[in-house]
Amino acid sequence: MIKLNEDILKIEDQNEFFTASKYVREYKANNPDKKVISLGIGDVSKPIAKPVIDAMHNAVDELASMKTFKGYGPSHGYDFLKDAILKNEYSKYSFSRDEIYISNGTKTDSCSILELFDKEMKICAVSPIYPIYKNGAACLNRKIEFLKATEENDFLVDIPKEHYDLIYLCSPNNPIGIAYSFDYLNKWVDYALNNNAIILFDNAYYAFIQSNDVPKSIYEIKNAKKVSIEFRSFSKSNSYTGVRCSYFVIPNEIYSDINEVWKKRTINRFNGADYIAQKGAEASYLPESQKEIKENIHDYMNHVKILKAFFNEHGFKVFGGDDSPFLWVKLRDGESSWEIFHKYLEKLNVVVTPGIIFGKDGDNYIRISGLASEETIIEAMERLRGYYEK
Amino acid sequence: MIKLNEDILKIEDQNEFFTASKYVREYKANNPDKKVISLGIGDVSKPIAKPVIDAMHNAVDELASMKTFKGYGPSHGYDFLKDAILKNEYSKYSFSRDEIYISNGTKTDSCSILELFDKEMKICAVSPIYPIYKNGAACLNRKIEFLKATEENDFLVDIPKEHYDLIYLCSPNNPIGIAYSFDYLNKWVDYALNNNAIILFDNAYYAFIQSNDVPKSIYEIKNAKKVSIEFRSFSKSNSYTGVRCSYFVIPNEIYSDINEVWKKRTINRFNGADYIAQKGAEASYLPESQKEIKENIHDYMNHVKILKAFFNEHGFKVFGGDDSPFLWVKLRDGESSWEIFHKYLEKLNVVVTPGIIFGKDGDNYIRISGLASEETIIEAMERLRGYYEK
Repeated sequence: MIKLNEDILKIEDQNEFFTASKYVREYKANNPDKKVISLGIGDVSKPIAKPVIDAMHNAVDELASMKTFKGYGPSHGYDFLKDAILKNEYSKYSFSRDEIYISNGTKTDSCSILELFDKEMKICAVSPIYPIYKNGAACLNRKIEFLKATEENDFLVDIPKEHYDLIYLCSPNNPIGIAYSFDYLNKWVDYALNNNAIILFDNAYYAFIQSNDVPKSIYEIKNAKKVSIEFRSFSKSNSYTGVRCSYFVIPNEIYSDINEVWKKRTINRFNGADYIAQKGAEASYLPESQKEIKENIHDYMNHVKILKAFFNEHGFKVFGGDDSPFLWVKLRDGESSWEIFHKYLEKLNVVVTPGIIFGKDGDNYIRISGLASEETIIEAMERLRGYYEK
Repeated sequence: MIKLNEDILKIEDQNEFFTASKYVREYKANNPDKKVISLGIGDVSKPIAKPVIDAMHNAVDELASMKTFKGYGPSHGYDFLKDAILKNEYSKYSFSRDEIYISNGTKTDSCSILELFDKEMKICAVSPIYPIYKNGAACLNRKIEFLKATEENDFLVDIPKEHYDLIYLCSPNNPIGIAYSFDYLNKWVDYALNNNAIILFDNAYYAFIQSNDVPKSIYEIKNAKKVSIEFRSFSKSNSYTGVRCSYFVIPNEIYSDINEVWKKRTINRFNGADYIAQKGAEASYLPESQKEIKENIHDYMNHVKILKAFFNEHGFKVFGGDDSPFLWVKLRDGESSWEIFHKYLEKLNVVVTPGIIFGKDGDNYIRISGLASEETIIEAMERLRGYYEK
């Protein structure tokens, strides 16, 4: 008799995501005359930079001719892209090609990495949390314990006293929108060193970091190479959410043979990222691309600033937004995140993300994203002003 | 203390693949004047059809403008591609969109599907075997038992008497190169129905099927919808090995809630296939694309025919090649597959795949591929003739 993976059957909070989209879909269907706009999505709105587009066209053309055709690429990614990443992202840390893995998305990578470790490893993560870590781990029959981040601890959980083997840290953080400082990450690296633990560092939003006291990479922390796997993506910086290209680093210095074992895993489980995506990602490091990319990030951060100022002015406590495109807005008057979600949807036709999606600890908050287009931000601001200032 | 996944540590036969490539690399380095050609690879040599290239260019252009930009797509794939697949591949079977999953490679898909099932499910597969199933399953802490296909049973294993929950079948088969007939698959579907089992049907090479008594899809078998998940890929037919786009079908008729549970899994583990790849895949169904694709397959099958005739003429027993681009050549005089690999490499500068890569039962065989270019096939034939006819 077929028995399904019970840990997947038990996944529940995913339903909250579905519920939110269902409400939005139903509202739109019942109110076709209303223009519903969204501050809820974590997706980008800016198009891909011109030199990246050009590089992708060239790659497509290569595939059109027998002489330049590319078939299967290396499971771990092409050297041309690894070299570009090493040079432009990691030149300070003297990594080598065989410490970098090119892949097709941090969502997949940050969960699949668990295949590398024994199922009994104790795993922790900080809550409220992007539910993917927990649910992805469930698909692989692993459990994650949660350390509660609260307003009282500035959303910086105390370094635990108990032992964990694997620690998920996400900085800049989704959904809280804050980023971890040198000081704070130093403590985590020390913890990992003392506990023979490994930090799984989700750094997908690194390009949004503005503060000087926040490291852009975990490897800026002393000895982090011995205890950290860092995950990054071209999704947000390169507007690649539809194209799919990510990378992560497993340093050779990290415990004995982890890197070699992961190679064995990947060769058996993955046939490499798309060639066209990799050629485009390489071109994202051209100066003209970087100029466009920096302007995009500047614009997104500007959206966040405008939204943050608004909510602050209207008496909300707002977290995040300095080093990430997300705001974590504390609701007033004991409102629940579903209540304000419905209020905004029905009265303002503005979609926000109810905090409960990120766990029960998030129920008194909403997540607001600055990644929408300027047009959407302007319109949303008008509606919010109309509502709160009427 | 960090403990690694011991099942990955135990993977050994992967080493044979590495060993073969290492030998080739070393031989080339030590003999830079020799022109080494390969009949070993399972990769395609034909470029991508013109209308597919055009569609990919258009998709790239869409990503260059804010108005047409596409961010995250659906985790399960875009409806436009699902509809094209339903219409062109599966019109007979009345599947719906929510039974099709678009993904980025059958290697990944055919293993990841195991996440859906309880770890204790009994899994079998036919050996000799593409080692990926076994090694991929090991990454997910699952074990596969093997049913031995031998010359004596025409490489068609007897339907087992014992109970299995999940059965990997690969037709057209890699490495044996044969494809399973209606009659034979009927027996497996009956077995699955009687055992409440599920067939995981790797159909990646379906486009190469020529014989009338071989179904192009498992769903041509009566009741197969109740017990079969079929995996396919654009890799071989569409020359997409570097682009990455695959799909698979989980029929709603299959046990109760499998399809819904898989949706939950995928949303948590995958962010969808590349948009450009999906647009190109859609265009592969245009009549002008199909014309090119059919010519390509005709050419590959012609290569196989030439190679098969040669080995037959020279007293080798040859299996496969009628419905797949692979030949499974039995070695003479008790030679081992490593011996002939080295002989061909060093004397003819021709690379073939030693059968032992596909398990011990394959040691008396080599796998030969017709997917190389015409130029390579002609050159290989000359060298083989020179060697065997001198």
